[in-house]
Amino acid sequence: MIRVGVIGYGYWGPNIVRNFSSTKGVEVISVCDRDSAALGRCKIAYPYLKVFSDAHDITTAKDVDIVAIVTPVFTHYRLAKNALKNGKHIFVEKPFTLKSKEAEELIELADKKKLKIMIDHTFLFTGAVRKIKELIDDNVLGDIYYYDSTRINLGLFQHDVNVIWDLAPHDLSIMDYCIREKPVAISAIGAGHFSNKLENIAYIVAHFKNNMIAHFNINWLSPVKVRTTLIGGEKKMLVWNDLETDEKIKVYDKGVKIKNKEGIYELLVEYRSGDMWSPRIDHTEALKVETEYFIDCILNHKTPINDGRAGLRIVEMLEAADKSLKQNGNLVRL
Amino acid sequence: MIRVGVIGYGYWGPNIVRNFSSTKGVEVISVCDRDSAALGRCKIAYPYLKVFSDAHDITTAKDVDIVAIVTPVFTHYRLAKNALKNGKHIFVEKPFTLKSKEAEELIELADKKKLKIMIDHTFLFTGAVRKIKELIDDNVLGDIYYYDSTRINLGLFQHDVNVIWDLAPHDLSIMDYCIREKPVAISAIGAGHFSNKLENIAYIVAHFKNNMIAHFNINWLSPVKVRTTLIGGEKKMLVWNDLETDEKIKVYDKGVKIKNKEGIYELLVEYRSGDMWSPRIDHTEALKVETEYFIDCILNHKTPINDGRAGLRIVEMLEAADKSLKQNGNLVRL
Amino acid sequence: MIRVGVIGYGYWGPNIVRNFSSTKGVEVISVCDRDSAALGRCKIAYPYLKVFSDAHDITTAKDVDIVAIVTPVFTHYRLAKNALKNGKHIFVEKPFTLKSKEAEELIELADKKKLKIMIDHTFLFTGAVRKIKELIDDNVLGDIYYYDSTRINLGLFQHDVNVIWDLAPHDLSIMDYCIREKPVAISAIGAGHFSNKLENIAYIVAHFKNNMIAHFNINWLSPVKVRTTLIGGEKKMLVWNDLETDEKIKVYDKGVKIKNKEGIYELLVEYRSGDMWSPRIDHTEALKVETEYFIDCILNHKTPINDGRAGLRIVEMLEAADKSLKQNGNLVRL
Amino acid sequence: MIRVGVIGYGYWGPNIVRNFSSTKGVEVISVCDRDSAALGRCKIAYPYLKVFSDAHDITTAKDVDIVAIVTPVFTHYRLAKNALKNGKHIFVEKPFTLKSKEAEELIELADKKKLKIMIDHTFLFTGAVRKIKELIDDNVLGDIYYYDSTRINLGLFQHDVNVIWDLAPHDLSIMDYCIREKPVAISAIGAGHFSNKLENIAYIVAHFKNNMIAHFNINWLSPVKVRTTLIGGEKKMLVWNDLETDEKIKVYDKGVKIKNKEGIYELLVEYRSGDMWSPRIDHTEALKVETEYFIDCILNHKTPINDGRAGLRIVEMLEAADKSLKQNGNLVRL
Repeated sequence: MIRVGVIGYGYWGPNIVRNFSSTKGVEVISVCDRDSAALGRCKIAYPYLKVFSDAHDITTAKDVDIVAIVTPVFTHYRLAKNALKNGKHIFVEKPFTLKSKEAEELIELADKKKLKIMIDHTFLFTGAVRKIKELIDDNVLGDIYYYDSTRINLGLFQHDVNVIWDLAPHDLSIMDYCIREKPVAISAIGAGHFSNKLENIAYIVAHFKNNMIAHFNINWLSPVKVRTTLIGGEKKMLVWNDLETDEKIKVYDKGVKIKNKEGIYELLVEYRSGDMWSPRIDHTEALKVETEYFIDCILNHKTPINDGRAGLRIVEMLEAADKSLKQNGNLVRL
Repeated sequence: MIRVGVIGYGYWGPNIVRNFSSTKGVEVISVCDRDSAALGRCKIAYPYLKVFSDAHDITTAKDVDIVAIVTPVFTHYRLAKNALKNGKHIFVEKPFTLKSKEAEELIELADKKKLKIMIDHTFLFTGAVRKIKELIDDNVLGDIYYYDSTRINLGLFQHDVNVIWDLAPHDLSIMDYCIREKPVAISAIGAGHFSNKLENIAYIVAHFKNNMIAHFNINWLSPVKVRTTLIGGEKKMLVWNDLETDEKIKVYDKGVKIKNKEGIYELLVEYRSGDMWSPRIDHTEALKVETEYFIDCILNHKTPINDGRAGLRIVEMLEAADKSLKQNGNLVRL
Repeated sequence: MIRVGVIGYGYWGPNIVRNFSSTKGVEVISVCDRDSAALGRCKIAYPYLKVFSDAHDITTAKDVDIVAIVTPVFTHYRLAKNALKNGKHIFVEKPFTLKSKEAEELIELADKKKLKIMIDHTFLFTGAVRKIKELIDDNVLGDIYYYDSTRINLGLFQHDVNVIWDLAPHDLSIMDYCIREKPVAISAIGAGHFSNKLENIAYIVAHFKNNMIAHFNINWLSPVKVRTTLIGGEKKMLVWNDLETDEKIKVYDKGVKIKNKEGIYELLVEYRSGDMWSPRIDHTEALKVETEYFIDCILNHKTPINDGRAGLRIVEMLEAADKSLKQNGNLVRL
Repeated sequence: MIRVGVIGYGYWGPNIVRNFSSTKGVEVISVCDRDSAALGRCKIAYPYLKVFSDAHDITTAKDVDIVAIVTPVFTHYRLAKNALKNGKHIFVEKPFTLKSKEAEELIELADKKKLKIMIDHTFLFTGAVRKIKELIDDNVLGDIYYYDSTRINLGLFQHDVNVIWDLAPHDLSIMDYCIREKPVAISAIGAGHFSNKLENIAYIVAHFKNNMIAHFNINWLSPVKVRTTLIGGEKKMLVWNDLETDEKIKVYDKGVKIKNKEGIYELLVEYRSGDMWSPRIDHTEALKVETEYFIDCILNHKTPINDGRAGLRIVEMLEAADKSLKQNGNLVRL
């Protein structure tokens, strides 16, 4: 039996507790939160759990194998370090850390102690993203031309981070997972409209060596909710609308072939416009798939797709985006 | 009776001929195209018109008061100059010219000769854009926070200009018309995926003095057609979906108020989420409204909203976007 | 403290327990189900509840004030009667009973014993239906011309009742609540495509004295989910799309005025096509509103809008629909 | 060269003239309309055509091979008879005639004189309907369970016919074409809300020998436009949304299998929920395909799919629907 201690029982923590609890061979043993009201809710839902107000009681507990860190990002490094030092595997809320150096240090520490790190990039375990990964790996889309993502709504304004650190980890981690090539540079532009100075709207571009380009439109101040990603491939194009219940992914047999001839007026463009196909998507709860996979990685010595290094790559992109943001969109090399 | 000569009878020319023809007090008198097939179609549709293959026969014709220039952009300057020199008002397809200097010279020439220039920013005359302008002018939206436009589809690849010069004039002119403040800088990033090296996907940002930001997502290589603009205002937010038949504009009584308190955890955010309202839109053909308005401007000595200066502002933004594109998104001051 | 005993802990029962539990002044005290697996789930979620496998232990319990009956319809009459006899208020899943005579008997019994009956027509307590009721009561729509409802999806085939008894209670009760006039006759047509002979698709029409007409399209065998109701009024028309997250109700300022003149060709039709307006909808969980309202009705001697008589009207319409169905659509008077 | 004379140049007539004109081997030679304004528009568009105000000048003209009758339905019989008597093939606007007896007489007359009749059921020639026909013929959908069509909007109120005669011919002819089995009975219910007493809303059901059922929701008084048809098949289900630009047809790999076991609680339902597929649709103008097909039928002695007998079947269904309507939905045998 693998035993889990969970730090943080706010918005997301209950889902972590519920999913680890229902995973075979796993037992959630203790929960910690500084907020006594949160602990109260936990006690009602799980009367048999130990509850603490000090994270130390979990990171150092003898009866804990995995520490799940479900707290604001600025606390991740310290809590993760304590847990690793005490020989615990860690499951860390995204984004991994505030600074790439911190992430690097944690990765090194985990490697040394032969412990697993999993960053909770939950979206990677949705049926939709797994299907997109499969379609790209199977070369159904062909070479990728562009990746264009929009994640906007009237969102919960965070008090400590801007919209980039809140929303972009989702999309950056999805792109990182699905697209083999890695970006060489990042640029970002944004604006904040309120007294807290934090950007509530931003546009990020990831630049690649080949002509591929990725773009992320993120916005906490949209009257409508949009969760759409377009992936333009040489052979097929894909639209993922995560707000659709049933037809989340549509694959279009559409494209263009250009044959340059001599004169400027001789451009020959062939348009292809064929069928559309919407593959069935698995609807299993993503977090359920993820927690089971983490246990599998620990028991069978596998490296998670969303390990510390994956988490680090996202933090590096976020850092670069933040830096570019402050320079009005200057290209920041990765 | 005001007499119009039309240069160019390709894709858009027939609409120009049809709309000027049906405008009271106006007569289309001659049409010119280098392509004899185009002229053939014109003769069948309008047997009574004079047709020419040399634009000179229109720019210098004694019986022509307005020259409508409906040709590729690289020909605009030369044709417009000839027409103005010969004392003709000009109605020029968008974008006005390839270079801002050319536009400036044409404006000066027209001023000297007391002739009118109208740039065919047709969208300004749609019911939707007129309604948006009205809502902003009446301060229904309040201060504008952002303007976010998407215009993508599997588009006609142009042989001589990239996607910016093809699609952005629409959205830049709409923004220029609706938003009082003018951008102080432009940045743009794009990519071309075919042998002709022209960008087929691009993202443009217009920067403003206050914290306002405008963003334009344009793409010739999208499997789906999207024509959506979000305008986030302090008091109301607006979504314009031009592909809707009946409910093109939706005005949302949604917003956020942030009251900073002392500690970082004390951020107080008030969300407002009220009714949505979709105002009735006038459905008169935009080009019809525009041609009638041009005649009115000429007869009554009014300055068109889409005069040479408006056209010049768009060309300046396009030039800046192109320049930024070549510098990987560096800010280009206007 | 009002004490509730719940009979039935299958699909819907847990929601009943959860909502009564979180209602102020109410305590859920016992739960009964014949299925031990269901009871097991109940014990995990609510370890402090008494659980029984025999409904008798609830209908006759001294410590129970309200019996909630959340079981298949064919059991309602017997359980409700036992509960009423033992002096309990009853909260009964829809539809009330299988036969109108049974419902009448229960109403009489409750009246005699001064007990309350509430039929769980949950939809009446959604923000959307409450808003529609308000718009009709305030005469915003004017006289109603028609009510047209579609409720289709790839639905759960019931083993004991056809699609009418499963889906129509929702829409019939909504219509019954919102529209003041009562239908005078019902007709219905349907078809069953499987060996169990139960209709899986049906169309019901409710006929009214004035020219109003109501139509219900219900289908367990649709590849797409649709939950849409159109209400055509003299002054305004309303579309309720319950699958929309944010804009469930749209009110259209559209209509027609016809002025007959003499000859057949002289018909004068005036079309009105104005703004659309989507009022904000309260998102409180309907069942929460309903359970609180039931307590309020009991404590303050109010008659619930969804009392036994309301439940009876729905059963009468279902009976009539079933009878018409078997007669190929013959009109059945109510 | 086949020569066409067109009677009626109102709303639809110009499309008939334009499409016959552009068909190879066909010449439109004359047009007739009682309204001089309509004739004026015709003269401007087609200066070389002969125009008449008396239909006699077309039905008896020596230089006419086909008479296209594009007039209100009550005139069809008389005009068609005159044309056939004078040896002309006829192309008749839908619905064929007001009475089935008239249609039968015309068919007999045409047979005797070896002339072709085509009823303008234009929808049969759209890419969407041709694709649906193909999918059903190829048994992609399997046995058909139901056909459910909705055609509603704020429509043009006709002065001489109710909504059934105006809208249902579209859907009845599409069903008649796509579904091999023929209905054995019709029932219909409707309501009229204006002083002219004509029904503006109606629901038609077509009953089949096997358990198939077809339903038609037609409405001139809807605030929103809907043009959707669901076809539920044993193997696949199809949704045709004619208002979609690109994805008009969606084929769902969804379904249900029911295996009855002994007890009522033993019902075993297997749900199948697989991919969705949207086949590419040909976008050629339907009327163009239809007029070319008519010429082909005449030249090559083929019987049109939309011949007089097809037109008659639709008239018989309309008559039955009208009769049922007046009897409050009684089943009318065909």
